Order: sequence, then C-alpha cells, then structure tokens
Amino acid sequence: MGTAHLFVIVAAMKPTVAIGIDLGGTNLKGAAVDSHGRILAKRADPCEARRGPETVVADMAQLVSALLAEVSIPRSELAGVGLGTPGPLSQRDGRIFKTANLPGWQDVPIAAMLAESTGRPVTLDNDGNAAAFGEFWAGAGRGCDDLVMLTLGTGVGAGVVLGGRVLHGHFENAAELGHMIVAVDGLPCSCGQRGCLERYASAAGVARRVVEAVREGESSTLSGAVHAGEAIDSRKVVGCALAGDALSLRIWDEACLYLAVACINIQHAYNPARVILGGGMSGAGDFLLDRVKEHAQRRKWSLHEDLPDIVLAGLGKDAGMVGAAGLAWGDHQTRSQ
Amino acid sequence: MGTAHLFVIVAAMKPTVAIGIDLGGTNLKGAAVDSHGRILAKRADPCEARRGPETVVADMAQLVSALLAEVSIPRSELAGVGLGTPGPLSQRDGRIFKTANLPGWQDVPIAAMLAESTGRPVTLDNDGNAAAFGEFWAGAGRGCDDLVMLTLGTGVGAGVVLGGRVLHGHFENAAELGHMIVAVDGLPCSCGQRGCLERYASAAGVARRVVEAVREGESSTLSGAVHAGEAIDSRKVVGCALAGDALSLRIWDEACLYLAVACINIQHAYNPARVILGGGMSGAGDFLLDRVKEHAQRRKWSLHEDLPDIVLAGLGKDAGMVGAAGLAWGDHQTRSQ
Repeated sequence: MGTAHLFVIVAAMKPTVAIGIDLGGTNLKGAAVDSHGRILAKRADPCEARRGPETVVADMAQLVSALLAEVSIPRSELAGVGLGTPGPLSQRDGRIFKTANLPGWQDVPIAAMLAESTGRPVTLDNDGNAAAFGEFWAGAGRGCDDLVMLTLGTGVGAGVVLGGRVLHGHFENAAELGHMIVAVDGLPCSCGQRGCLERYASAAGVARRVVEAVREGESSTLSGAVHAGEAIDSRKVVGCALAGDALSLRIWDEACLYLAVACINIQHAYNPARVILGGGMSGAGDFLLDRVKEHAQRRKWSLHEDLPDIVLAGLGKDAGMVGAAGLAWGDHQTRSQ
Repeated sequence: MGTAHLFVIVAAMKPTVAIGIDLGGTNLKGAAVDSHGRILAKRADPCEARRGPETVVADMAQLVSALLAEVSIPRSELAGVGLGTPGPLSQRDGRIFKTANLPGWQDVPIAAMLAESTGRPVTLDNDGNAAAFGEFWAGAGRGCDDLVMLTLGTGVGAGVVLGGRVLHGHFENAAELGHMIVAVDGLPCSCGQRGCLERYASAAGVARRVVEAVREGESSTLSGAVHAGEAIDSRKVVGCALAGDALSLRIWDEACLYLAVACINIQHAYNPARVILGGGMSGAGDFLLDRVKEHAQRRKWSLHEDLPDIVLAGLGKDAGMVGAAGLAWGDHQTRSQ
C-alpha cells in the first residue's frame, strides 16, 4: 500500500468540518461547523427560490465551496452537508414534497441534487428539526436528551428531540406544533385549519392580530401606523406594549398564554425536560419568557412535578445551520460504524 | 453436566407464558398470555386498594398462582409478570408515586414487592401505556410501529408507541393526553387544570356534562332520571342521543369534536400512522368513530396527507392485561440477549 493511498484513507476517516445550510424563502445561510458544534465560518446569501431548485442547488454548491475556501479545509475533510428546509419533506428520501415558502417547488430530490453538485453526502431535515437539534447539540439544550424547541417567527416552527434523536414519525412530519389547535373554531390559519398555535403566538401572528384589532376599531398607539399602511412587526408590538399600549400588551400577553398552553400540552405529550423558545419573538427576552412561565405555572396540573423547564434559545439565528451540520456529523458517524 | 441441570437450563430459556395484570381502583384483572399475545386464561377479582399495597400484592401473587395452575404451567416457565397501574409512576424504578385511583398509596415500590412475592421479574408501566402496547402487539395496532391509543373511560387514558416502543419521556409521564388542554380556560378538571380533553371526551365527562346541563335547566329525556338522582353513564347518553334527545346528541357530538381536535394535535405532535379509540365510549362503535372521523376530516390541514387512520380498539377490556404481558415478554427478551 503506497503512502498516497494511505493518506486518502486517513483523510476520509478524519473529517474536520461539516457544513450546515439553512434554506429559507428569503435567505440561504451556511456555516462550516466542527465536530464540537463550533462555527468556523458562516455566510448568508439571498435565496432565489423562484428561479427553481437547479439554480438554488448551484448557489448552495457555491456556498459550500466558498465556506471550505474560507476555512482552508479540503473537500476530502468535509464530513457531509446538512440541509434544513421548510417541510413537508421526506428526510429518509431526501425529498421536499412542496412548501409554501419555496413557491413552485414540488417533489424535489434536493439531497441527491446537492450531493451530486458537492460530491459529498447530504442530510436533509425540516428546518424546525434542524434548529432543535442545533440547540440540543450546542445551545440551550446541551446535556438534555429530551427537549422540544419552538421557533417563533413567521410561523411557529418546532422540533422534538427524544433520547438524543430527532423525532420524525410515520409520515416524517412530526413536531408540526405550530399547527397544534389551541382554540377550537378559532382564527383561520393558512394551513386550512382554524385556531392553530401560530395564528396566536408567532411573531407574524402577533403583529397581524394587532393590525386586525386596530382595523376593527380598537385604539392603540399603533393606530396611526396601521391606518397609514406601515408594516407592523412583533418588535413594534413589544415596544408599544412596554410603553403602556393596552392593545399591544393584551395581544402579547395572549400570545404568551397560548404558548404556556402549548408548553403544558407538550409536557403531557412528550414529557421532555426542557422547552426552548427561539425565533424572532424570543428577542423580547424576559418579557416573553417570564410571562409564558407565569401563565404555565398558574395553569399547570397538580398531579406530578413534570412541567418542563422553559428557557430561551442559545444559538439565535444560527441554530438551523448548526443543527443541520450536526445532523450531517451524525450521519457521517453512522456511515463510519 | 447431569440431565436434571440441563432440564433447568432449557426450561429457563424457553418460557411459555407471561402474566399480565391490570390493577385498577375497583378491579384486579390478570391473564396468562403466550408469546404471540394469545390469552390462555384470565381472571378478575375485586381490588381492595384501600387495604393497602401489602394486601393487594398478596392478592396479585395469588392471582399469578391461580392462573399458572389453570393453564398447568410451572412457575419456571413464567417469562415474567407485567403490571399496568394508574400513574404517575416510575417505570424504570418500578415505583408508584401516588395516584387518585389507589387512595393512600404513596411512593410504593410495587414491582420489587410483587417480584419478591412471585419469585419472577416484574415489569411495571402506566395502564394507558400497557393498553397501547397491547393493541400494538395483538390488537388494532398490529403491524403498525407508530400509534397512539386513547382509552375513553372514567378519564382519557393514553399510550404512545413510536418505532415499536412505548414512549415514556424524561419524567416517565409522557402520553397523558387526557390532560391535553383543548379549551383554554374551559371546564375545571380534577387535575387542577382547566379545559382538559377528558373533561369533554371521556365516558364520565360526557355523562357529567349532560347532568350539569339538565341541572342548569336544559330539557332532555334524561331530565327525570337526573332530577331523581339516578346514575347517568355514557351508554345512557348514547341511547338517548340515538333516540333523538337533542341535548344528549349535542354533548356526544361535542365530545367527538374534541376527540377529532385531539387526533389532529396527535397528528402534528407524533405523526403516527394510527390513532386507536378504546375504553367504555368505544362501545358506541360507529356512532363514535364516524363522527370523530367526520370532524377530523372537516378540520384537518391541507398541507400534507398525514392524518392518521382513526380506528376502534380490537382487544376491548383485555388490552391492558395483554399489553402488560407483552411488556413482560419484551423485558424477558432483553434480559436473554
């Protein structure tokens, strides 16, 4: 056996980095992550989802090359590429079925396409699952084998880790907790259901409810902005609530109440040790966390002390990339066994 | 090695039966079950829970001996004893914490006590988990690795099987789905919460809601019976609903609606292939099943075809015993590996 051959084997057995990609409707983000969950480099590009999967796959392959160049690591030391995207999708088959945030994409074998373009194995998972795995591996879930993460952004994304593994379920679509019904016959959701958690307790849902209330005639310090057609986001709602606007405070508090109910239902469903709150709304910090915990304490059962710890996320907007890289590291380990 | 010694080894390696026990507040039921989930013999005795754990353990040991005698199988061929009881409990430690249905029992090491009395290993689990495992192993869940069972009786018991294994969770109290909140600030539940599923959709909950409505002045063919203080159960409610009593029909239909919402939340939480409805209310057959399925079809999301099949239980009141025996068989296998 020649020296060159030996070198190839050693290199293939000892990768130094995995790349995690977080593909959303507007951004394409990637990070080179070592085997301890540390980010060595990261980049963000706009996502041109409308130009179709082929274009986006080419952009992702380019992102992988750019990240490898940035950290000066050869492709032979790349453990794999992890990719988190909106669902529904098949993690097993590496295929996106169709998704509201990537318009026109239908039944796309994205993992195989990206593996061909990058020359490395690709692990696909739902972006909520990737973020949950990221927090589990290297964030607010470290050391905790059973946790649930809720990402409070445009919707409520979620991921569930049980016994250190991401829960997928029979149809590979588990942990769609943003569509847990918390109000029977409640507000209509774009998913076709009524009363979904995300209609009340996502960043976009909170902003929308303030706008709807103002349009129905309720008064608020945001009334002028709403009537002028300005964009309202959850950060503005939080700002007004903190400044004493009664409507903003009421709707924020209701969001916290519904999140508390979600935490209690999560407690009874999975009995995890921890629920992690991330995404845009978690930027409000204690103004979110304290209220959710208060509502949960006031409404929890008395039969057993098994309400999970409710905590804020630790990785911020990096959770999805780090988690996707972690899933790629996990697959690499499985292949090496 | 003498022949007698050899015989002992063979006997110990090839057990022919496990005994499953279902311990409730009123009944103590047991069955001898072979390794295919077939009941060879079963017995039911009253449970004298008030006389304390020692008495009940002695009764259970007696039940085991009686069942072995009935099937003429020596104790050496007993794989183990499975025990399903109300929770909260620790399956790992074989210990009941405390439970409403076994008054006065507190922190009871029931598995160790029963193992000492019977001379065989004992596997403890929550009665809802045992019933779910029974249906998975030998009932309406056969061939389905990911399922959820709801037992609609005095409360709503539940068990979750994922990847062929019972889900326990970090605090060992997963799948308490009867206490999923389906109506925020709804009717008070004995658990301390408000709006629990079991307050609306258990057999006892349905009967109680009819009684409450009549006492508040609503008219019903059950009014006379309620005012005379007669006991109302869900079977009577079903009978009156089928005979055209509007109140009974409305409350039955609301129970079916809340069960449909529960099935949708279960879909999004675990993404199982099947939800199995058992317990007293499932005796109504299609009058339950068709309504639950109709409500679920009307309220489900449109993003993915992943609503689980909703079906009636197959083992009736034997599910808990069969499942407990199945868990004992499983533990035996693990020990033999």
